[in-house]
Amino acid sequence: MKAWFKSIEQQVTGSDFPLEKVLVELNYADDGLIPVIAQDTETKEVLMFAWMNTDALRDTLATGKMCYWSRSRQALWRKGETSGHWQTLISLKTDCDGDVLLAEIKQDGAACHTDRKSCFYLEFGETRVSIIK
Amino acid sequence: MKAWFKSIEQQVTGSDFPLEKVLVELNYADDGLIPVIAQDTETKEVLMFAWMNTDALRDTLATGKMCYWSRSRQALWRKGETSGHWQTLISLKTDCDGDVLLAEIKQDGAACHTDRKSCFYLEFGETRVSIIK
Repeated sequence: MKAWFKSIEQQVTGSDFPLEKVLVELNYADDGLIPVIAQDTETKEVLMFAWMNTDALRDTLATGKMCYWSRSRQALWRKGETSGHWQTLISLKTDCDGDVLLAEIKQDGAACHTDRKSCFYLEFGETRVSIIK
Repeated sequence: MKAWFKSIEQQVTGSDFPLEKVLVELNYADDGLIPVIAQDTETKEVLMFAWMNTDALRDTLATGKMCYWSRSRQALWRKGETSGHWQTLISLKTDCDGDVLLAEIKQDGAACHTDRKSCFYLEFGETRVSIIK
């Protein structure tokens, strides 16, 4: 666990820290990426999971639209740019050890490339895994 | 994107696949781990983010209690074993490319090691990041 996040964990509600400090201290993986959970701000459904580097994170904060890092294309991925399925950022959080981001978003259309609202359409059962939507 | 997940994405709702096949096809990272999002089944709040290997995943499915892989301790981490803050598995899903798990859980006590209900207590603002709970 990174020392900086440990050092602030007992501070009271309302304590705050410079954005630039947090952007430096975030616990990026060796490839410079941090995972991102995108949650529908109205239904609270988890819609998708992707990755950002600092450029994608700065782009997201500057524009208010979710911008990820595409690991397959190795390029910034402004979600909605080709599909029209934009994600408007409502709130952005990180966790106690700064190794993941949680974005509440307003989703235009489908989050999933299969045109499903959410990417999480495969559910585990005891012996089988089912497509649930 | 893994070919197997691509091959099933257009199948209809209700289609199902052997659990063992899915456990093999899941898109584990190079270190053999897959990220896991734990969401409160009642409030839909995202409580924490951690990792599993196949042993942890099998343990979770067999016991109905969340078992992660602790990257810091390099050992299975049966959540609640020391804290009493057990997480009972309600449902488990994976996404369109099988590279993340989403668990709906019933949380006993706090999910976070800081004794907060959720690990996501740091919220980004325009120039500052604040402790919100």
